[in-house]
Amino acid sequence: MDVESGEGATGLMWSRLLTTDSPLSDDAAGAVAADEWNAANEASSVVESLDYEVIESVAYRDDQAMKGWWQLGSYVTLKWLFALFIGVGTGLSAFAINVAVENFSGWKFLATFAIMRHSYLAGFVIYALFNVALVFSSVYIVTSFAPAAAGSGIPELKGYLNGIDTPGILLFRTLVGKILGSIGSVGGGLALGKEGPLVHTGACIASLIGQGGSTKYYLNSRWIRMFKNDRDRRDLVTCGCAAGVSAAFRAPVGGVLFALEEVTSWWRSQLLWRVFFTSAIVAVMVRTAMGWCTHGNCGHFGSGGFIIWDTSGGQEDYSFYELWPMALLGVIGGLLGALFNQLTYMLSSYRRNVLHKRGNRVKIIEVCLVSLITSMLSFGIPLLNKCTPCPDPVKYPDIVCPRPQQHYGNYVLFNCPKDSQYNDLATIFFNTPDDAIRNLFSTKTVHEYSARSLLTFLALFFFLATITYGTAVPAGQFVPGIMIGATYGRLVGMLVVNLYKKDGIDEGTYALLGAASFLGGSMRMTVSLCVIMVEITNNLQLLPLIMLVLLISKAVGDAFNMGFYEQQAYLRQIPLLESRPKRFLRKLSAKDALHTSKVVSFPRVSKVGSIVSVLRSVSHNGFPVIEQLQNGETAVIGLVLRSHLLVVLQTKADFQHGPTPGHENRTKNKYSVTDFVKPVSSKGLSIFDVNLTAVEMEMYLDLQPFVNPSPYIVSEDMSLTKVYNLFRQLGLRHVCVVPRPSRILGVITRKDLLPEVILSMQYLTL
Amino acid sequence: MDVESGEGATGLMWSRLLTTDSPLSDDAAGAVAADEWNAANEASSVVESLDYEVIESVAYRDDQAMKGWWQLGSYVTLKWLFALFIGVGTGLSAFAINVAVENFSGWKFLATFAIMRHSYLAGFVIYALFNVALVFSSVYIVTSFAPAAAGSGIPELKGYLNGIDTPGILLFRTLVGKILGSIGSVGGGLALGKEGPLVHTGACIASLIGQGGSTKYYLNSRWIRMFKNDRDRRDLVTCGCAAGVSAAFRAPVGGVLFALEEVTSWWRSQLLWRVFFTSAIVAVMVRTAMGWCTHGNCGHFGSGGFIIWDTSGGQEDYSFYELWPMALLGVIGGLLGALFNQLTYMLSSYRRNVLHKRGNRVKIIEVCLVSLITSMLSFGIPLLNKCTPCPDPVKYPDIVCPRPQQHYGNYVLFNCPKDSQYNDLATIFFNTPDDAIRNLFSTKTVHEYSARSLLTFLALFFFLATITYGTAVPAGQFVPGIMIGATYGRLVGMLVVNLYKKDGIDEGTYALLGAASFLGGSMRMTVSLCVIMVEITNNLQLLPLIMLVLLISKAVGDAFNMGFYEQQAYLRQIPLLESRPKRFLRKLSAKDALHTSKVVSFPRVSKVGSIVSVLRSVSHNGFPVIEQLQNGETAVIGLVLRSHLLVVLQTKADFQHGPTPGHENRTKNKYSVTDFVKPVSSKGLSIFDVNLTAVEMEMYLDLQPFVNPSPYIVSEDMSLTKVYNLFRQLGLRHVCVVPRPSRILGVITRKDLLPEVILSMQYLTL
Repeated sequence: MDVESGEGATGLMWSRLLTTDSPLSDDAAGAVAADEWNAANEASSVVESLDYEVIESVAYRDDQAMKGWWQLGSYVTLKWLFALFIGVGTGLSAFAINVAVENFSGWKFLATFAIMRHSYLAGFVIYALFNVALVFSSVYIVTSFAPAAAGSGIPELKGYLNGIDTPGILLFRTLVGKILGSIGSVGGGLALGKEGPLVHTGACIASLIGQGGSTKYYLNSRWIRMFKNDRDRRDLVTCGCAAGVSAAFRAPVGGVLFALEEVTSWWRSQLLWRVFFTSAIVAVMVRTAMGWCTHGNCGHFGSGGFIIWDTSGGQEDYSFYELWPMALLGVIGGLLGALFNQLTYMLSSYRRNVLHKRGNRVKIIEVCLVSLITSMLSFGIPLLNKCTPCPDPVKYPDIVCPRPQQHYGNYVLFNCPKDSQYNDLATIFFNTPDDAIRNLFSTKTVHEYSARSLLTFLALFFFLATITYGTAVPAGQFVPGIMIGATYGRLVGMLVVNLYKKDGIDEGTYALLGAASFLGGSMRMTVSLCVIMVEITNNLQLLPLIMLVLLISKAVGDAFNMGFYEQQAYLRQIPLLESRPKRFLRKLSAKDALHTSKVVSFPRVSKVGSIVSVLRSVSHNGFPVIEQLQNGETAVIGLVLRSHLLVVLQTKADFQHGPTPGHENRTKNKYSVTDFVKPVSSKGLSIFDVNLTAVEMEMYLDLQPFVNPSPYIVSEDMSLTKVYNLFRQLGLRHVCVVPRPSRILGVITRKDLLPEVILSMQYLTL
Repeated sequence: MDVESGEGATGLMWSRLLTTDSPLSDDAAGAVAADEWNAANEASSVVESLDYEVIESVAYRDDQAMKGWWQLGSYVTLKWLFALFIGVGTGLSAFAINVAVENFSGWKFLATFAIMRHSYLAGFVIYALFNVALVFSSVYIVTSFAPAAAGSGIPELKGYLNGIDTPGILLFRTLVGKILGSIGSVGGGLALGKEGPLVHTGACIASLIGQGGSTKYYLNSRWIRMFKNDRDRRDLVTCGCAAGVSAAFRAPVGGVLFALEEVTSWWRSQLLWRVFFTSAIVAVMVRTAMGWCTHGNCGHFGSGGFIIWDTSGGQEDYSFYELWPMALLGVIGGLLGALFNQLTYMLSSYRRNVLHKRGNRVKIIEVCLVSLITSMLSFGIPLLNKCTPCPDPVKYPDIVCPRPQQHYGNYVLFNCPKDSQYNDLATIFFNTPDDAIRNLFSTKTVHEYSARSLLTFLALFFFLATITYGTAVPAGQFVPGIMIGATYGRLVGMLVVNLYKKDGIDEGTYALLGAASFLGGSMRMTVSLCVIMVEITNNLQLLPLIMLVLLISKAVGDAFNMGFYEQQAYLRQIPLLESRPKRFLRKLSAKDALHTSKVVSFPRVSKVGSIVSVLRSVSHNGFPVIEQLQNGETAVIGLVLRSHLLVVLQTKADFQHGPTPGHENRTKNKYSVTDFVKPVSSKGLSIFDVNLTAVEMEMYLDLQPFVNPSPYIVSEDMSLTKVYNLFRQLGLRHVCVVPRPSRILGVITRKDLLPEVILSMQYLTL
């Protein structure tokens, strides 16, 4: 069993030699954890990612001339430059989307109001046509050009960052489809938001920057080639997600926390810092761009657009008895959120399995119908609503009622018989979502809305949001969630004002808490959502209340079903590992998770034909490689990945005639750095793409240079809960199960890992 | 090698049987990762913590009557109730400390000012006496009663939460010493803060609540016994740390992030949620208590006290050219922070190794001397300062100059010849730190300070802060750091105002950024510090700027030395694992970290005498247990901990006469739940405490019931970087190194861990 001196160690030495001085070594030390974490999943068109150690060694061979500190320095510099670019790119995209949406909406409402003076019907036709046209453009782009741009994109990104790759989500066309599609769908007045799509946009930008542009206009610079590996790419995408949130909500800290809490399943402090930087850049970018717009350069884009709803004028104080209605908000949020998740899940499931299988035409017709219904409701229902007299201008001198046209604000005059009246339903329904939320959050406007109007709006908008999500347009759930929550929040606020009859209770504050509660009940995020809510309302004083409401709504919602993104991921067959393993796992051991079929392993030098037939017959993505030692015993020399085998088989450079192990340096220069890199978001190579002649099938292949020499191992009787945590915390995709060991060479403790202890033991001078 | 059917499996089955229906099972599933994470460290008086699986099984045996959902429910309820109590307790302590400090300071300044009208010398004597008396009370309490209460406590907590236990840090006496000590040291005007000690206070409260009060007044309820294990205790302490930050800065989100980023080394989303809740409770508590004080119930405690420095009146906009001076602030912060770390490290090292070894009297004299120097400087230097004429009341109608006595604010009249003058050095020097910072941050007070005054203050206060830290009183570094940073920040701000001569540049904003830069350069925290800065200044608009400054100052500081807490932990020989493993680890494999001496393992049934002699001769904390199988081969049945062996040896209940393995159920009811629990913060049992007769030494012990049957294993040739990450991410304390496996039973992928996949494979109905 003396493996160290046997041939089995060659692989290790070779790999160690290569990894040590490799140009990518800066983060490699800190991030080896991430090098193996792409889950191998056959069910959901998963492409196996690249083993980091192999790419590292290949990179070394390819770029041997460049090494040392200079190399390392440029790698680090580039890493930060990329973060900068991601920030700038995402900030600009967010800005572009906002300007476009605001302008389209502005023109729409301007035209509608102008024509309505002559005829309501003509006004409606113009309004509906405008909406349908925008929505049609969106769905057309998405269905015919960028199918992966439909939906929110966050479930897919969550999958990607946990190792499960959905084809197409990070392509250039997806980026374009997402940006243009959200402009159409949001501008077209559908009950959805642009925030989820912006997160996806950020991720696409990050991925494209990492590969030097679209695959067609490949910048094959050696600098960018360094980032052609899964770990760096994923780090960039994490930055992109944070940048997206940061841009969508102008919430840089919220973005960082979102990336950590929601999309990744582990915590790496080095990455944290870079994510943080990207977020800050986005915030600066957006701010600069908006500053440029204040001089009227951006048409209708003005105080609206970016969702910042300043509630600093609201409630400054709260009493203990107010905690009860706030807790009630939490409960309502949990219930309605869970209901929303369930309904959208069922509807999405129906769409995926039945409706959308009938082709693109059905998808287009569906969205256009939804758009028509939305237009009818948002135009028609306010028409049926009775106008309210404006509040007494003597008592409330600050309130402008009705508001002058083309000004943002409350108290809109819509189909009212008198000039001193306003239509409260039109204020929220016949408006852009951002402005509607601003009006719902508005403070010091006591009794602006009637309970009947709010209830009507709540029911109808809940219905619209439910049927809209899952259609083939880019769609975010934040803004609809905030709308729904703010509506019942304001209702509860009215109740509290009437009940307690005390000064200082503001309906707008309750609307804000309601919004938090619905998002908490639906998305089940905690810290990040809380910070985002604080950042978008720019009001830190409400933080403890938001926390309270979120705690309750999440707990209530969790009693019913999974979070929104988890359900959608489940629907898309993305195997996300929950943060908390199921209880029954504790009854099982690692052995129990193995398939009943015997493990398929390769001998170190295998016949090409037998490799091909194994790859054809089983769908595994990782294969142990076993070596026969001199003394007749066997030793596992590592794990080889299907994707790497396919590359080696296709290249054919390493085929040899005899079954003797090859020489160590023989693979040098046979592969270029990008050979082993999995393409971004595609199915990758299949064994059926590899064509081999009968002669080649009879040749041999020494697998040793291609193995990961030290995969994580667990003993067969380790509890599955422990295995589960190993997967999640280290981000693994494969763990090898070994028999219960017959002996232990030693026990490592924390102290043994301290630099001074190791150095003193090794007598190393480094 | 068919271990499953051999006797080796018994241990596993037994343990599995026990753990499955255990009353503590709620979090057990999610947190098995944490069950092994106390580092075994002999160098720093480390007490080995309890293996979670054993405590679980013991708890089961002890409380067999109570199980099922009701049991689980009460455990969860209690967990949240404890979080509530921690929040309330920490909030109240923070409030008490603040009220006491503000009142002591108020009386001190009142008396000094009153006497100064007659004689400056008498005023100084009163001032210095007041200070020395308070400081003496603090150091006396600490040295004679609670030595662990000295210093900030954060390095020790970091160690504790990473598995290294410093004796005494979580005792009741430490709590009392910390609270009373900080009142004395902060009230006595030393150059230190109460924020670090508050974090420690929160942690002590959490630990005490978890064990049902002080060890003397032990509440031996079965409810609280559930929490008598390392994992739950550590979770509570994490909540306590977050509560401390939340109370110290009124920064609930900052508290959560601090607990995650700074004190723990891993990320667990279940705990996150509870930490969040605790933080929110603290915020509500502090707010309520402060509200109660507004009616004059709290003496001098008013708008001062809790450090909230509202800078919302400050700069709202910034231009690109301002980014340069801000970057300069970052560089200065990095340099000064690194210098501060280095000086305090050297001074602390001298104190630890030389000065403080001479006994308590030296410690007391030292602190009193420091207090005298502080009094002399803070009283004398402003006296030497020339007064400045008040700003033109016509041009600045908002400025009250000089301020009325006993009002907080700027422009203090101190030793000025005319009544329309103020003494700018006295404003910051002869004041409580909180008020001084408020004055440094104050906005719209252009040119309040002269550059000379600021430079004088900077140099002197830097000197005072350096000599003060490390003395035997509770001492936090936040407030001194903010003072230093704000001073040079304001200096740079003055420079910018003079250079750019543009409206809207506010010196107070630069002071705030300076404070962030110094803290970043010294403590090297990132996200949490940023959020804390935003929360204490209640100004979200500066967030991107704070981020920028922190990025630069941390990078500059990192170029020189470790962070403040890491250095202090290093000094205390607490082996913290850095987040990024050293590069040279990649050249080494697991084998290289093993001690050259052979591993010491026990046979399953060992002679008591041989166990004792092994425990006496080696200092290891974990021992593999090997079983001889029927077929002559050996199998490792698990790892047994020194601390458990000691308990078993002391109890003697399991000694048997022959070397045959015992029956499975034989250990039932022999141990109570608390037997295996390590006492909070003490050295624990030593092998020399165990007295055995010669007859007992000849008896046998079956170790199988006491082993952890599935420790984490790594192959001998796994890279040490990977091992390092395993330790950090899973929070382990032991990893067993096994020979390269000879075969692999199978490969587990993520998909295999999905509940539906496992269930379909197992045909289980759960």
